[in-house]
Amino acid sequence: METPSVPPSAEMRFRVRLRTRWSDEDNHGVLNNAVYLTLLEEARFAYFGELGLLRENRFPFVLAHSNVLFLAPGRGGAEVDVECRTTRVGKTSFEQVYRVIEAASGKAWCEAGARLVGVDEQGRKVALTEVLLAGIRSLEGG
Amino acid sequence: METPSVPPSAEMRFRVRLRTRWSDEDNHGVLNNAVYLTLLEEARFAYFGELGLLRENRFPFVLAHSNVLFLAPGRGGAEVDVECRTTRVGKTSFEQVYRVIEAASGKAWCEAGARLVGVDEQGRKVALTEVLLAGIRSLEGG
Amino acid sequence: METPSVPPSAEMRFRVRLRTRWSDEDNHGVLNNAVYLTLLEEARFAYFGELGLLRENRFPFVLAHSNVLFLAPGRGGAEVDVECRTTRVGKTSFEQVYRVIEAASGKAWCEAGARLVGVDEQGRKVALTEVLLAGIRSLEGG
Amino acid sequence: METPSVPPSAEMRFRVRLRTRWSDEDNHGVLNNAVYLTLLEEARFAYFGELGLLRENRFPFVLAHSNVLFLAPGRGGAEVDVECRTTRVGKTSFEQVYRVIEAASGKAWCEAGARLVGVDEQGRKVALTEVLLAGIRSLEGG
Repeated sequence: METPSVPPSAEMRFRVRLRTRWSDEDNHGVLNNAVYLTLLEEARFAYFGELGLLRENRFPFVLAHSNVLFLAPGRGGAEVDVECRTTRVGKTSFEQVYRVIEAASGKAWCEAGARLVGVDEQGRKVALTEVLLAGIRSLEGG
Repeated sequence: METPSVPPSAEMRFRVRLRTRWSDEDNHGVLNNAVYLTLLEEARFAYFGELGLLRENRFPFVLAHSNVLFLAPGRGGAEVDVECRTTRVGKTSFEQVYRVIEAASGKAWCEAGARLVGVDEQGRKVALTEVLLAGIRSLEGG
Repeated sequence: METPSVPPSAEMRFRVRLRTRWSDEDNHGVLNNAVYLTLLEEARFAYFGELGLLRENRFPFVLAHSNVLFLAPGRGGAEVDVECRTTRVGKTSFEQVYRVIEAASGKAWCEAGARLVGVDEQGRKVALTEVLLAGIRSLEGG
Repeated sequence: METPSVPPSAEMRFRVRLRTRWSDEDNHGVLNNAVYLTLLEEARFAYFGELGLLRENRFPFVLAHSNVLFLAPGRGGAEVDVECRTTRVGKTSFEQVYRVIEAASGKAWCEAGARLVGVDEQGRKVALTEVLLAGIRSLEGG
């Protein structure tokens, strides 16, 4: 499978400190794999919340594709930094990449890519709005 | 991003009926994206449980890479069939593909690929055991 | 604390077969305590779904109080029967009791009580509707 | 049902700032009820972590009884303070009370009580250790 191509940390435009929960660990004593998708979603929540682009706690897009590479076993009850960058923007979709890093050790737990597609308030696919595109440009500096 | 290449249903070797939960829906009123990784994990639990290869409710491998294509909005409180096939087996890892289908409608909600790597009971990476390889071969008919 | 007073199984009016998930176990290797609230919610989903009282996958009430007694360690990947009975009905709220039983062993994992209060589609507290009360009476035989 | 008897905030001995996740909301657009048990668990994780009483990310006790009163609808993506106090200590079990407060508004979302019973590393019920009792006394000032 194609590995997500995630730039070095210095080139990532957004970073948010999050915390894993004790119950995020499964019976292997490590962070369950599904929790990583939740961490990436939390990073998007912070990214688009900072831009003022959420609609009453809802996203103006949905996840269409995710590609997650698990690099090291994660733990519950830990602080993590999730880096995020938008790497491509189209008419109806955009792509982001992420890196989840344990704050205490600096160790990367996962790298990931995602493709998101615009939806309206009823969840129907629609073109990305100009305000969304402008927000992304303002944050990414492109 | 590379789309997972999932064969037609007739060529999938394993299928398990699962049920989504009401609380699997998020505030968009659809199945949250992280739940799909849980459904794929449940399919692996059924696949390797049928082969007798779980160790006291634990897996002899961990997820190293997942690639999920979201095709249609899912719902909570629904029966789904998860199809699974092992597509590649190596010395230390193997790959599987999956399709999640709503039972009532026959509609595919997602297609996915995963790479799993062998671990011992302490979670250290090890070669896949001969009993695991033989189990996969017996189920896949290869 | 007051123990929930749950009648014997023969006096419970509703029972539904559910399945726990592998990832419902935490790092103690047992069903995480929060999952029990999800199982009770799934029993309500089945109870009120059977009565045709859900509104597009939403409940016409919310949980106001829950009291859960944990009796034995639960497991993931197991079939459970959740018994349910409505024990009191008022103008704006009703109470239910529950028992979660492992299907394979017949062992009770938990007993619980809950109080639910009526809400409208915007989540504002309202009196229970006559159709809800009639549905409960029809199922409970009172 | 008996309402948990939770002292005013000024008499609570421990407080921890936590964060709810976007996906903690269900399709009613409010914090799902099961998440509250996770928040109480996170408060215990912080309380006993501060005391140095966790064993490699595991608790030396399990939840035996929980009693949760839901006071106001909670939200995902919010900062909350969870207050905690140990109200009773016995030979094999102890009791705690909690209050979950939205940080931005000061509004209490829930009040709760819990009874915890000591377990050894294999999960068997055992007397509370002297070190656990001493830790609780040191924090509670009793």
